[in-house]
Amino acid sequence: MTDTTTAWLGSRPATPSVKMPERGFVPEEFKARVARAQQHMAAANIDTLLLMTEPEIRYFTGFLTPFWQSPTRPWFLLVPATGQPIAVIPSIGFSAMKRAGVDDIRTWSSPHESDDGISLLADTIRALSGHSINIGLPMGRESSLRMPLTDFYQLQKLLPQSQWHDCSSLMQTLRQIKSPAEVSKIRFACQTLSTVFDTLPTLLTPGMSISEVFRVFKLLALQQGVDDVAYLVGTSDAGGYDDIISAPGNRPLTAGDVLILDTGSVFDGYFCDFDRNYAIEQVTRKVESMHTLLWDATEAGLACAKPGNTCADLYHAMNQVLAPHAIDSDAGVGRMGHGLGMQLTENPSLVDFDTTELAPGMVLTLEPGITWAPGKMMVHEENIVITDAGAELLTKRAPQHIPVIQSV
Amino acid sequence: MTDTTTAWLGSRPATPSVKMPERGFVPEEFKARVARAQQHMAAANIDTLLLMTEPEIRYFTGFLTPFWQSPTRPWFLLVPATGQPIAVIPSIGFSAMKRAGVDDIRTWSSPHESDDGISLLADTIRALSGHSINIGLPMGRESSLRMPLTDFYQLQKLLPQSQWHDCSSLMQTLRQIKSPAEVSKIRFACQTLSTVFDTLPTLLTPGMSISEVFRVFKLLALQQGVDDVAYLVGTSDAGGYDDIISAPGNRPLTAGDVLILDTGSVFDGYFCDFDRNYAIEQVTRKVESMHTLLWDATEAGLACAKPGNTCADLYHAMNQVLAPHAIDSDAGVGRMGHGLGMQLTENPSLVDFDTTELAPGMVLTLEPGITWAPGKMMVHEENIVITDAGAELLTKRAPQHIPVIQSV
Repeated sequence: MTDTTTAWLGSRPATPSVKMPERGFVPEEFKARVARAQQHMAAANIDTLLLMTEPEIRYFTGFLTPFWQSPTRPWFLLVPATGQPIAVIPSIGFSAMKRAGVDDIRTWSSPHESDDGISLLADTIRALSGHSINIGLPMGRESSLRMPLTDFYQLQKLLPQSQWHDCSSLMQTLRQIKSPAEVSKIRFACQTLSTVFDTLPTLLTPGMSISEVFRVFKLLALQQGVDDVAYLVGTSDAGGYDDIISAPGNRPLTAGDVLILDTGSVFDGYFCDFDRNYAIEQVTRKVESMHTLLWDATEAGLACAKPGNTCADLYHAMNQVLAPHAIDSDAGVGRMGHGLGMQLTENPSLVDFDTTELAPGMVLTLEPGITWAPGKMMVHEENIVITDAGAELLTKRAPQHIPVIQSV
Repeated sequence: MTDTTTAWLGSRPATPSVKMPERGFVPEEFKARVARAQQHMAAANIDTLLLMTEPEIRYFTGFLTPFWQSPTRPWFLLVPATGQPIAVIPSIGFSAMKRAGVDDIRTWSSPHESDDGISLLADTIRALSGHSINIGLPMGRESSLRMPLTDFYQLQKLLPQSQWHDCSSLMQTLRQIKSPAEVSKIRFACQTLSTVFDTLPTLLTPGMSISEVFRVFKLLALQQGVDDVAYLVGTSDAGGYDDIISAPGNRPLTAGDVLILDTGSVFDGYFCDFDRNYAIEQVTRKVESMHTLLWDATEAGLACAKPGNTCADLYHAMNQVLAPHAIDSDAGVGRMGHGLGMQLTENPSLVDFDTTELAPGMVLTLEPGITWAPGKMMVHEENIVITDAGAELLTKRAPQHIPVIQSV
């Protein structure tokens, strides 16, 4: 290690752009989430929620670990009609779940030869509410079943008189309104990454490969205070790009390229999700005008983003600006923004069929995109929280005119 | 930005410890994977595989993107009895999938109001093999259903005469033998992170908080050449720890602590997964002896890890060393190692009931763990590839005696 290399490890900007919020939540936050869930459960005649994905379990417990990277073991959380959640989890998670504040934890040694938690889960559900029980399981839009299907069939067999209800929209209703503490974490990620995007042009030069750009981006973001750059996609291509979800290639930044970088960086388990576009040395007037057009579309979205309007209204407000100039007005993305929080993308969707009403506490991305010529698209993105007064920007607003990366 | 801060962004060690392999794979690699799958499918009388998770789709296509962070849209890949895979995916993925080399791509605009790819998928399956078709779907150990359950029921309804077969073990059989190109990516991640673990004691000092340790670790790993530190857990506690899956807390490193850090860092979509333990200033003789005991258990594992022996044999070889000293010989982890590759953990498991025979090309973690007093555990971990001659270490072997982090 050279002196130069070690020097940066301790270095932090003298004046961080935004104060880092406290980690975690006060216990009352989780109690309030459980109480709200139980109100909705009572209205829907659901006796217990059965949850098994990372964000759903974290929502009610604060259980935060990257251990979900391992697909080996199923994890279960039951939210009963009254009282506090019960965790039915592999023994490897006992101490961490206890530390998260869950009192009732039932464990088994996993992986198990023949019964990976299924009979323990069935017994726990039966003990909670008897044999005839209405179980809420997320089965609809954006959900997945994080357990083997054969084990799920076995669970249904062990609970023959249970009724299974889709609780996707119940969970979405709860999660889409963020608390002030949740918003503060997202805001910190957004502000920190805004600084990264602003600083980037001083660190990039034409000729650098996209994978090197990614490395610089990630180092800078970590150095500025986020925990992880969980999501970074981007590409750079002559006069525009045709793909916004790629991992980096080895193409060098070349004069005339448009470079897009789109990041979901994380602080304390909460994401930002936005992008920025750059011109390498120079771009055509067409590219410049598309950048400004997308900026205008975002302005239209910002003006429309107030309580009472719907997601469809927001979609139309942005699409109206873009449609006259577009071959494909959503650039194949399928929507113009979405919810944001514990996941990179969450409900609702800014599409013409989503009539979810905007409400204070909703955190959204505005993500207008356009395909303006065959194989040439551009996407802008900002993050906002809905307040009584309208949209509050969480990101620092993108420049109206495309920023230029110059050779040194 | 200060000069010191910008300096590190371009800096790389003068002599990297290991040469970075080529990214991606030659097209023949995917053709060989498909051909091997089709041999197994023929033997099991399966007409098509239906796959929907990131590693399974990447295994047959090379499709590499962090876009899987978004739970919104389902993705499907069909591997037919003959011919090449067919992707049935949201339009946002078309260009990236094309670039990955898949020729037959069917897309729909997602999210969709009422039919998120289901009728397109059913039509594609029907066109492939008619109405009576044997579909292989991973439904067993370590699998999950990455699509809404209600949509899965709808798919089954649209294909009323189809037979559904669990193809989990078929997929595991294929994936657990790594090609030399796959091994080279894992080796690079292992060697790079070995350098990080070796360098770390010179950068850490007592008093530093665990979250600061994590930040330094991640910066160093990125700077050394991995793409992501997708998994980092660890803790530091007086005389030992009771939890190995935690996100960082704010506790400062304190004299007498044992610090453990366990990382799954990624190069070109392939993981390493190993840990190291450190003493802060000094630890008890008991802790020192446990470190050496676990080192010995790993030696026993290394000696046993040769073709013909089973996963259960490996488990017993390590457990035999630990059991006389243990309250709980697997420290609640439930096994003593596992497969490794495109995921942090993969089949097989080093447990007494897994009789999978070791074979050349298998990449495994050896992960002996022990609880030696109430609330005090220790876990060691190395990564190996099985060769004709036995175990080849991919990581740089941990020191026999626990390394000490001294105050400056």
